Amino acid sequence: MKEENKVTPRTLPGFMELLPNEQVMFNQMKEKIRTSYEKFGFLPLDTPVLELSEVLLAKAGGETEKQIYRFTKGDTDLSMRFDLTVPLAKYVSANYGMLQFPFRRYQIGKVYRGERPQKGRFREFYQADIDIIGDGELSLLNDAEIPSIIYTTFKELGFDNFTIRINNRKLLNGFFDYLKLSDISMDIMRCIDKLEKIGADNVKSELLNIGISENAIDQILNFISISGTNNEKIKALEDLNISNTMFEKGLSEIKEVVKNIISFGVPENNFMIDLTIARGLDYYTGTVYETFLNDYKQIGSVCSGGRYDNLAEYYTDKPLPGVGISIGLTRLFYKLNELNSVKVDKESISDVLVVSMSEDISPCLPIATAFRNAGINTEIYMNDKKLKTKFKYADKLKIPYIAILGEDEIKNNTISLKNLSTGEQNTLNIEDAIKVLKNVKK
Amino acid sequence: MKEENKVTPRTLPGFMELLPNEQVMFNQMKEKIRTSYEKFGFLPLDTPVLELSEVLLAKAGGETEKQIYRFTKGDTDLSMRFDLTVPLAKYVSANYGMLQFPFRRYQIGKVYRGERPQKGRFREFYQADIDIIGDGELSLLNDAEIPSIIYTTFKELGFDNFTIRINNRKLLNGFFDYLKLSDISMDIMRCIDKLEKIGADNVKSELLNIGISENAIDQILNFISISGTNNEKIKALEDLNISNTMFEKGLSEIKEVVKNIISFGVPENNFMIDLTIARGLDYYTGTVYETFLNDYKQIGSVCSGGRYDNLAEYYTDKPLPGVGISIGLTRLFYKLNELNSVKVDKESISDVLVVSMSEDISPCLPIATAFRNAGINTEIYMNDKKLKTKFKYADKLKIPYIAILGEDEIKNNTISLKNLSTGEQNTLNIEDAIKVLKNVKK
Repeated sequence: MKEENKVTPRTLPGFMELLPNEQVMFNQMKEKIRTSYEKFGFLPLDTPVLELSEVLLAKAGGETEKQIYRFTKGDTDLSMRFDLTVPLAKYVSANYGMLQFPFRRYQIGKVYRGERPQKGRFREFYQADIDIIGDGELSLLNDAEIPSIIYTTFKELGFDNFTIRINNRKLLNGFFDYLKLSDISMDIMRCIDKLEKIGADNVKSELLNIGISENAIDQILNFISISGTNNEKIKALEDLNISNTMFEKGLSEIKEVVKNIISFGVPENNFMIDLTIARGLDYYTGTVYETFLNDYKQIGSVCSGGRYDNLAEYYTDKPLPGVGISIGLTRLFYKLNELNSVKVDKESISDVLVVSMSEDISPCLPIATAFRNAGINTEIYMNDKKLKTKFKYADKLKIPYIAILGEDEIKNNTISLKNLSTGEQNTLNIEDAIKVLKNVKK
Repeated sequence: MKEENKVTPRTLPGFMELLPNEQVMFNQMKEKIRTSYEKFGFLPLDTPVLELSEVLLAKAGGETEKQIYRFTKGDTDLSMRFDLTVPLAKYVSANYGMLQFPFRRYQIGKVYRGERPQKGRFREFYQADIDIIGDGELSLLNDAEIPSIIYTTFKELGFDNFTIRINNRKLLNGFFDYLKLSDISMDIMRCIDKLEKIGADNVKSELLNIGISENAIDQILNFISISGTNNEKIKALEDLNISNTMFEKGLSEIKEVVKNIISFGVPENNFMIDLTIARGLDYYTGTVYETFLNDYKQIGSVCSGGRYDNLAEYYTDKPLPGVGISIGLTRLFYKLNELNSVKVDKESISDVLVVSMSEDISPCLPIATAFRNAGINTEIYMNDKKLKTKFKYADKLKIPYIAILGEDEIKNNTISLKNLSTGEQNTLNIEDAIKVLKNVKK
């Protein structure tokens, strides 16, 4: 082909494509999330990226719908999934008779939103979701297990200093109902959300602007400024003496949930009641969650979700209550990587690079096979290059060990194993080398 | 929402969507392929599903192009990837300066082809690819390592009785050049391909029909009927005394490759020279591979690939020779599952279901946390149901153990651990229960 016909190889803006060393880190994060989710017995699900638009957009509308990658092929109106919740709703209602309830599933997959591209915003990104779906009913114990899952997952990802913030939508809804402000509760919550950013005085004047009485504003600010330990907050909520069924239900739920979160062994400094958390969606009806890495608060919530009454009302009359959370993995990785704060167990795939001192590389082959049979990730440097080039390759790929085969080693059935971080080099028989290399992995 | 407004939840034809127990099996296959590929030091890659049509279709044409999911969003002409090779070519040419060569990468991901849907044919399917890309040159040792990777992978997938068939396109091309039949070599190969199906006589008459002389046909049939061990085949090829540079090159390559496959420890009954294998694509220029599960030959080749001179000629002038293979995972799983022949280590995600004998489930929570902290996948049955229902749930999900907490157990800080396959039940302290449960996993 003539040069002038070359196409410039490039990737679409908003689509993350990593260099190998970054991809190794990303995959370790993904893998840790997966194993954490499986530790809690969640079943894997892998729904298609493409769905019928009629099915996928049964519920959508407004902003979401504009962002959809939607097109026609033949006579079929197709859309790429924009989250993993709608496909779950479809799946559960379509396979209802074949599933065991409570149905616990996780799905880690790419979703697509044609947003205006900007730094740190992605059009293709991974979500890592878990949901527990009940058939008509779902024990509140599930709401308490969720923080235990979040705790386990973020500990596994290498973090200690994070806070899972929980609230209950019934508390909020009951409180606003009690104040007879239910119809503008979302507007109020939007103001409250700015509390940390703009301060109490500005929130107050915004609330005045939307027509709320001074008395109600005082009660709202009093409510959201409830502070102290979880037990102190519960006590303060009780002391409000709000006579409203919804509020009372919410209070009893959050008490029960907090008690059981502790039974699950989540340390009290990793979770707290936060009465300002609402989670924008109307969807949520009970416990809601947000999670913040306290050393990287600028990232925002790294794991959010909540309890809902009806997963799939657009597909079925069956009441399918559930509780779930989602980690926006692509954005989380991007932000942590930017801050040099992705924690990894190992930086390379290979544990060892086998190199030959001479032109004849074939004596390396059975050595590599012996290593691999012992479960060691092993690479052979196969090009006939200078030893320096081979070492540089291992260094660039951050492979921790080099196994060197020279004349002496071949004669004595040994190898020289060099630790590239300490520089230490030992001549070992294959069995002993395997013992050393098996310790590379976590 | 009113009932008449419900949308029927359904999945597009040609898009595989598995029930949880099947998904567990599928994921184990995927995971085994991944760990096998990593054992050989391949780096992970995860390119976008969507690419610019100009980039993705730089090389495509004809049938492929018709199958593409291609559409416009805003002003952008987009296509969903139809294989993992073109994205690799794009990636390597775009990131050339940032990669270490030889560049060894694997990618396991979904690709999209809008084929006419039929049983066992998928429009969305996983490919599991590895490729080794050289910068200008690539040692023939890599061609010998590929069968070692295939061998390791299919052993890991639980198979023993499979054959990796190898050939070299230079042998074929040289042979046809020697017969002065290069221009119709692809037609000849298509006839030869039918040998097993229609027999030698019918192949002969088809070859006559495309205008080949009786003498040439005899030589062709003689060539492809070469049989025996790998060494006997090589000897027979040498004895043909074909004086053609290309043929000689191919013969020397396949000799070298066979010798080194043995050095890699691949048993001789798992690989063989097969002179009838051509791999349709013009793309391949040297060693080619096909792999057959001998007990399930009807599936066709389960892992194919070969050596090519130029990965990315549509994007760059740099010669990037490579060798690679691909497993069509979705189809392989579908066919094996149909034959009840997917080999799995475990059928469930959870190792144990913790159940309470009484209404109060909260004593189960710290037990579950202790199990999980020990790395045991643990589920708690949280709904207040009859014990029978809880056992049935474990049985349906094929969870191997149930940990039962009754009054006595709570008092004595023990649990009763029931093995659901043997029926054996023992009362154990938590530490001993953990020891038993840790043995569940492979």
